[in-house]
Amino acid sequence: MKEECGVAGIILPGDRPQSNTVAFKLYYALYALQHRGQESTGITVHDGKSPKSIKGMGLVPDVYNKDSLGRLIGNIGVGHVRYSTTGGSKLENCQPFILKFKGGTVAIAHNGNLINAKALKDELECEGRIFVSDSDTEVIGHLLVKELIKHEPVESIRNVMRKLVGSYSLAIYINSALYAVRDPFGFKPLCFGEVDGGHAVVSESVALDTLNGTLTRDVRPGEVIVFNGSSFESHQIGNEPHPAHCVFEFIYFARPDSVIDGKLVYKVRESIGRELAREHQVEADIISPVPDSGITSAIGYARESGTKYLEGLMKNRYIGRTFILPGQELRETAVRLKMNTIQDNIKGKRVVLVDDSIVRGTTSRRIIDMIRKAGASEIHARVGSPAIIAPCYLGIDMATRQELIASYKSIKEVESLINADSLGYLSIEGLMRALECNKNDMCVGCLTGEYPVEIPGENCRKKQTHLDDFNKPKIS
Amino acid sequence: MKEECGVAGIILPGDRPQSNTVAFKLYYALYALQHRGQESTGITVHDGKSPKSIKGMGLVPDVYNKDSLGRLIGNIGVGHVRYSTTGGSKLENCQPFILKFKGGTVAIAHNGNLINAKALKDELECEGRIFVSDSDTEVIGHLLVKELIKHEPVESIRNVMRKLVGSYSLAIYINSALYAVRDPFGFKPLCFGEVDGGHAVVSESVALDTLNGTLTRDVRPGEVIVFNGSSFESHQIGNEPHPAHCVFEFIYFARPDSVIDGKLVYKVRESIGRELAREHQVEADIISPVPDSGITSAIGYARESGTKYLEGLMKNRYIGRTFILPGQELRETAVRLKMNTIQDNIKGKRVVLVDDSIVRGTTSRRIIDMIRKAGASEIHARVGSPAIIAPCYLGIDMATRQELIASYKSIKEVESLINADSLGYLSIEGLMRALECNKNDMCVGCLTGEYPVEIPGENCRKKQTHLDDFNKPKIS
Amino acid sequence: MKEECGVAGIILPGDRPQSNTVAFKLYYALYALQHRGQESTGITVHDGKSPKSIKGMGLVPDVYNKDSLGRLIGNIGVGHVRYSTTGGSKLENCQPFILKFKGGTVAIAHNGNLINAKALKDELECEGRIFVSDSDTEVIGHLLVKELIKHEPVESIRNVMRKLVGSYSLAIYINSALYAVRDPFGFKPLCFGEVDGGHAVVSESVALDTLNGTLTRDVRPGEVIVFNGSSFESHQIGNEPHPAHCVFEFIYFARPDSVIDGKLVYKVRESIGRELAREHQVEADIISPVPDSGITSAIGYARESGTKYLEGLMKNRYIGRTFILPGQELRETAVRLKMNTIQDNIKGKRVVLVDDSIVRGTTSRRIIDMIRKAGASEIHARVGSPAIIAPCYLGIDMATRQELIASYKSIKEVESLINADSLGYLSIEGLMRALECNKNDMCVGCLTGEYPVEIPGENCRKKQTHLDDFNKPKIS
Amino acid sequence: MKEECGVAGIILPGDRPQSNTVAFKLYYALYALQHRGQESTGITVHDGKSPKSIKGMGLVPDVYNKDSLGRLIGNIGVGHVRYSTTGGSKLENCQPFILKFKGGTVAIAHNGNLINAKALKDELECEGRIFVSDSDTEVIGHLLVKELIKHEPVESIRNVMRKLVGSYSLAIYINSALYAVRDPFGFKPLCFGEVDGGHAVVSESVALDTLNGTLTRDVRPGEVIVFNGSSFESHQIGNEPHPAHCVFEFIYFARPDSVIDGKLVYKVRESIGRELAREHQVEADIISPVPDSGITSAIGYARESGTKYLEGLMKNRYIGRTFILPGQELRETAVRLKMNTIQDNIKGKRVVLVDDSIVRGTTSRRIIDMIRKAGASEIHARVGSPAIIAPCYLGIDMATRQELIASYKSIKEVESLINADSLGYLSIEGLMRALECNKNDMCVGCLTGEYPVEIPGENCRKKQTHLDDFNKPKIS
Repeated sequence: MKEECGVAGIILPGDRPQSNTVAFKLYYALYALQHRGQESTGITVHDGKSPKSIKGMGLVPDVYNKDSLGRLIGNIGVGHVRYSTTGGSKLENCQPFILKFKGGTVAIAHNGNLINAKALKDELECEGRIFVSDSDTEVIGHLLVKELIKHEPVESIRNVMRKLVGSYSLAIYINSALYAVRDPFGFKPLCFGEVDGGHAVVSESVALDTLNGTLTRDVRPGEVIVFNGSSFESHQIGNEPHPAHCVFEFIYFARPDSVIDGKLVYKVRESIGRELAREHQVEADIISPVPDSGITSAIGYARESGTKYLEGLMKNRYIGRTFILPGQELRETAVRLKMNTIQDNIKGKRVVLVDDSIVRGTTSRRIIDMIRKAGASEIHARVGSPAIIAPCYLGIDMATRQELIASYKSIKEVESLINADSLGYLSIEGLMRALECNKNDMCVGCLTGEYPVEIPGENCRKKQTHLDDFNKPKIS
Repeated sequence: MKEECGVAGIILPGDRPQSNTVAFKLYYALYALQHRGQESTGITVHDGKSPKSIKGMGLVPDVYNKDSLGRLIGNIGVGHVRYSTTGGSKLENCQPFILKFKGGTVAIAHNGNLINAKALKDELECEGRIFVSDSDTEVIGHLLVKELIKHEPVESIRNVMRKLVGSYSLAIYINSALYAVRDPFGFKPLCFGEVDGGHAVVSESVALDTLNGTLTRDVRPGEVIVFNGSSFESHQIGNEPHPAHCVFEFIYFARPDSVIDGKLVYKVRESIGRELAREHQVEADIISPVPDSGITSAIGYARESGTKYLEGLMKNRYIGRTFILPGQELRETAVRLKMNTIQDNIKGKRVVLVDDSIVRGTTSRRIIDMIRKAGASEIHARVGSPAIIAPCYLGIDMATRQELIASYKSIKEVESLINADSLGYLSIEGLMRALECNKNDMCVGCLTGEYPVEIPGENCRKKQTHLDDFNKPKIS
Repeated sequence: MKEECGVAGIILPGDRPQSNTVAFKLYYALYALQHRGQESTGITVHDGKSPKSIKGMGLVPDVYNKDSLGRLIGNIGVGHVRYSTTGGSKLENCQPFILKFKGGTVAIAHNGNLINAKALKDELECEGRIFVSDSDTEVIGHLLVKELIKHEPVESIRNVMRKLVGSYSLAIYINSALYAVRDPFGFKPLCFGEVDGGHAVVSESVALDTLNGTLTRDVRPGEVIVFNGSSFESHQIGNEPHPAHCVFEFIYFARPDSVIDGKLVYKVRESIGRELAREHQVEADIISPVPDSGITSAIGYARESGTKYLEGLMKNRYIGRTFILPGQELRETAVRLKMNTIQDNIKGKRVVLVDDSIVRGTTSRRIIDMIRKAGASEIHARVGSPAIIAPCYLGIDMATRQELIASYKSIKEVESLINADSLGYLSIEGLMRALECNKNDMCVGCLTGEYPVEIPGENCRKKQTHLDDFNKPKIS
Repeated sequence: MKEECGVAGIILPGDRPQSNTVAFKLYYALYALQHRGQESTGITVHDGKSPKSIKGMGLVPDVYNKDSLGRLIGNIGVGHVRYSTTGGSKLENCQPFILKFKGGTVAIAHNGNLINAKALKDELECEGRIFVSDSDTEVIGHLLVKELIKHEPVESIRNVMRKLVGSYSLAIYINSALYAVRDPFGFKPLCFGEVDGGHAVVSESVALDTLNGTLTRDVRPGEVIVFNGSSFESHQIGNEPHPAHCVFEFIYFARPDSVIDGKLVYKVRESIGRELAREHQVEADIISPVPDSGITSAIGYARESGTKYLEGLMKNRYIGRTFILPGQELRETAVRLKMNTIQDNIKGKRVVLVDDSIVRGTTSRRIIDMIRKAGASEIHARVGSPAIIAPCYLGIDMATRQELIASYKSIKEVESLINADSLGYLSIEGLMRALECNKNDMCVGCLTGEYPVEIPGENCRKKQTHLDDFNKPKIS
């Protein structure tokens, strides 16, 4: 099941009296990660004896209140925000997935998509196991518990990682210890830092900033980190020669103020704008972004091109991002409500319109029509990513292949469909320059149709390392 | 975990187009069973492909609405109302318990308490199984699925029944077939009948009445019934020489208009009143019930004694039963709000006050004080059950042994504590006469401290039949 | 606009520090009066400086909570529960009506219907006054303020009373004094008593009981009482030679444990049953009530006739009264859900079915059909009131004249329509014997079509006292 | 009572069948005006016979839903969003204020503050009039109805305008005609345009854009416009030689994509940035805005100064504006949650931080501390408005005089208090250059302490035109 998510886990030193501090900090962390999922959210804490949790459909401020959070006593906890692309927006699928087993309690917050979830589930079902949700996370839960009744936690996690194919950035607690786990390719972001004398592991560094914490570093691809209050241990388990960080986190999904895998997202986006200006120069009067996601690239484009940056579109701050709202009808209404043209800035102007990406093309068409109606003489669409030609199986909700406009249309056809006077996509090379990175170290499956892992019916750019090569845990 | 519950299951003939009829009928059935649990409720239906469900905390009319029920398409379904006595009023524990496994979907609605739930859970946990709730029902789910991957459903249910010790009246669906299961002692009620060309299995016959259905008969102790649309098959699995029907269903818990194990509850309560009058005669001016539960017995008492029936207490219809509300503080407020004296009916009168039972004695004391304040010259408490001296482990939420006033006080002490001029409990023999039944065919654990099944730390009136004697399923 | 309502007002001695005690007591009082209106409710208190209030649609426990009540600081307050028969179930119409004027704050809780509301409103509108609700109470508010800017409060109330035609039992506060006002005919009940060192005025005495207060007496027809903390003053303003108490409060609407105009409602209903038995004897096996409203009369009937009282119908305690729910569809569903037959008590029996009244006849028909289906050999309907042949304009929501079955059908026709083997209505004389009262001292407009006050298009049994005869206020 | 608000009114041609189109369009319009008030909202429509309305506390999407809006049938309507600065966030004060009077129904949506509300209210109260809310709008309602019972609507409005002192932009319907009214100084914005064959009057032009309408023009100061479906009539009533448009709408409050009194807000803010750069040059590495309100000015500053524009702060899009949330505690939490530094953009840099204004200074201090912590070597605060030294009495919620940091501190002291290396406010002259406007045509009361109208205890820059000079209505 496809979903976008944000995860967080916090542990405070064991010598501190149990309090609701962790619950409140998780709440703030999830608030900072709200852009990663607005459909449901959950927090669970553990006081060494039993877990307590709150889950609900909706935004962070709607699900939690001071009273309910105040009752969540426990010095360790994990939290989750989630957006699901499959119809199944059900409370049962709301994370963290909390389970009790022989050895105590496990809670798992998962960001990512397993490619082999169905196969793993079938295997588990053949053993007579039961499932109460549709989420991949429950699969991980079963696998983990199967190991935990025989092995130590890190060894158990390693054995689970050997079975999983796909993307997973996990914040887990097993009783009173916190674990951060990132798949061997490091698809989805995960980092950790110090917070209030303890530690926090979060999807994006902005959550640490919000907590007044300090970023220690990213969790490495294939790494498992065990947090015991104020100290931590690293175990390098997965062993891929090349990571495969998701390019779309940089292009669109992550917050610009996050530092992901050592790169400030804001800087990447600004560079994307510069590269785009170099690749697709055009005579124009103004450079205008599609707010909010195109703003930083547009600034970069304007600086590089020397053309004036002037906002031709204004966003209604009281309406959420379109990309993330389910339902086609809602998407359409949202465009009209959320985006307004500033006619005086546009009228009679040759406009370079900078957006982060084009998915279905419907929003772009509507925006360009609005700008044309406002009197622009020319509209040159510039897109801060290469054409998206293939679906994502690894954690970004884009669309099916049929919905992706560039998967079945040429660039000229897209240009005509969105009604632009010209259309320029950033090249993959340009994107890599902006990222200061090698194509082999990023996941560009949606841009090339070649994925870092084997996906039934799709091309794989290279074979995955043999699973038996996973390292035995030892402190690195 | 201790809980009181009501269950319902409905199946319509397979040749009928899938609709939301079952969902609406379950809703009405649960409304009729609301007295069995007011804390949470759930309905799940299955359309042959996938289950759909609604669960929530609160009363039936609060959890469901026309829109949400209207979306529950499927010709088979089970529903549940629940009241939990342990603090854990959590959504996770809300039934029916719905699970997916290799063979499809199972949904279980359970009324009763397993004595050996913890031991069974431990065993399952040792196999590495995981639990997401605290409810016994999840234990039954795991055991059932373990069997279902190897055996046919009825054989599977038999094998599960061999493992379970305690009370269980179950409405289960396994994909597109409905099952009614009652433990070999028949502790908790369960009956079935025809509804709208199909079948319904329900905790009490009133639910069939509400659905305009007809009662076929009680599910027999130890029986498993398979419903396939319009037909059904019976399998006699358990083989206890004596049933052990819960006396408290008759004394207090069930609705008076229900027929349970062949006996009309109303008639039993009226007879209880008559027996009580015979056993504890007293000169009085009026016979007055504690409403609502003492009304029928008071009428019987009045008829037998020839003394005038006159209501000295009036209930506020807008407030629920005290017995069933959690929290001591709420209980106290409720007494004051819900019950009012009719001074003119009481003043200067010698009052026989008939109640169904005395649990903690605190409510009785408050009521007697109110009546005294209203001017009664004498108050003779008459109780339609023997003294409750031991806790219930089998499905009625009474109280702990320490809370039960009669477990550590003599009748004289109770009389004095509740401030009555005299106190008369019905004898066990009188109760059995009212029930037209032998003590050996009822569960009277709470009245004698001897239970039909082995309970750690308690006396067992006889050994349970060896579990290997359970019948192989065959249509009876 | 037609509505049924309950009112309450409380004042605590002025030397006591301001607290939320009055708010909580009003809450309990309204809970006790919930049967008088379930559609909306409101409480307002005044601390000498400014009013604070809570209003909302729904039942008392749904509108208020501990936190919101806790913030209502003030030692005087009035409250209201309301049920409206006109579509207009709007928050704007929710009482108490609170207004600010030159002299401070006025809050009015009103039970009753003004006959001349429209004319008064027209007059006020001609002065340029504005209205923000559809309720009669706002009319009273305007009239009162017009006087208050010129006169003392009691004089003002007198001047308003001279203008009002119809029924009104009012709890009013004007700044820091509480007023109880009852129209000169005393249509709707109103009484007062001592509560916690202060005073409470309430629609029915049960609310005083709930507050652990003591009933002082009824507010007299035409009386205005001023409460100043622990003392009170009476002013006899209206001067009707005969009161016109609503018979339906006794027959159906009020709680049986209330004492209204010196009569215990329970006793009246029991006597109604006796009178009915005398007037309409019939050979039968059992006397069975329509619960809950027919219970007391059925007990009286059984006692008088010597025939066995046995309940043939059982009510689902979790569903509210039918009479009071708006909408025909809801009424129909409610009958099926709320009432169940006890077949064993009915089968083969000749049943006397006692109900309090027949309004439209549809419910009676459904109930009799249910009893017949359950196997009764004969069903003799006995009704604890005379036939209702005319609408109520004075505060009971019955129905329009066309909806009233007895307004256009003979008794024989009604008998046949409701499918009874025989039908007996209590005579007006019998009703008066039960009430120990003269017909001239009650309002029997709905039974005779002659009303105590002039109603356009209806007969008036006598002229209303000339309005100028209203007494000048002086302490009586 | 101080409040910020947005208003909207829509009328469709009378020959069109009555539908819910107006209600849905008002909903979208209010969504576009949500930034003007987030505390409560209301919509009322009229179908020629009776008004229907929805009001509630909260944001537009929380108060309305498709079902409830769908029931609002009527081709004329007005709507309101509101933010109140006085504690009184009560449902009673929620607008539009809807009243019934002799001549039908009036609904008023008001943006602004009356200076003489209290005096007018006193006068009305002396006539015995009553008030059910604390809002100025009810005062206007009373005055208007007093006239309407004697005069034609426009004449009536004129007579009311002669009495009102202060700011008022009104959308009113009187039965089936829509009126737009703006006070003679034009303090608060109000404009109108064509929408769907009819007309809309709205606080800001963005609402017309959202409705796919076209802006006709601003409502002129002192103008009354009558809309009759597709046509309209203008009446110039008020006659001030100089308008007094609120500068703060341009500096902060209005949306940048709005055109107010002929000026595009975006352009004014950009010019403010340029002027600021000219007035307060400083050597720096980056120009960084306080998002969102400082962005446009920062871009202007950067362009003028030639220094690089680089965002050092990032806003969490899921949290609303601080300025607008009531309660000091909420304000503090909000700063931490909503604003994050982008360390890499700031570290070691000399930062010019551009904000729109400084009110209390507390937020500025917190932001500057955050930037310093992130490693900035110098922080130069540049403010896009002159120092605010006096309170606003005319419709912007700022603060009391004591709370305004610049009212009792010198600029040097403010600089030190907010911990900036330097602080530069825009001069009033600079602001006027940016506005391309004369100081005499704007309200700059908060910047100078001299107000266009007499305010008790404050200085008045000139006398208000004698009220008798108000024009008789005639179509202009």
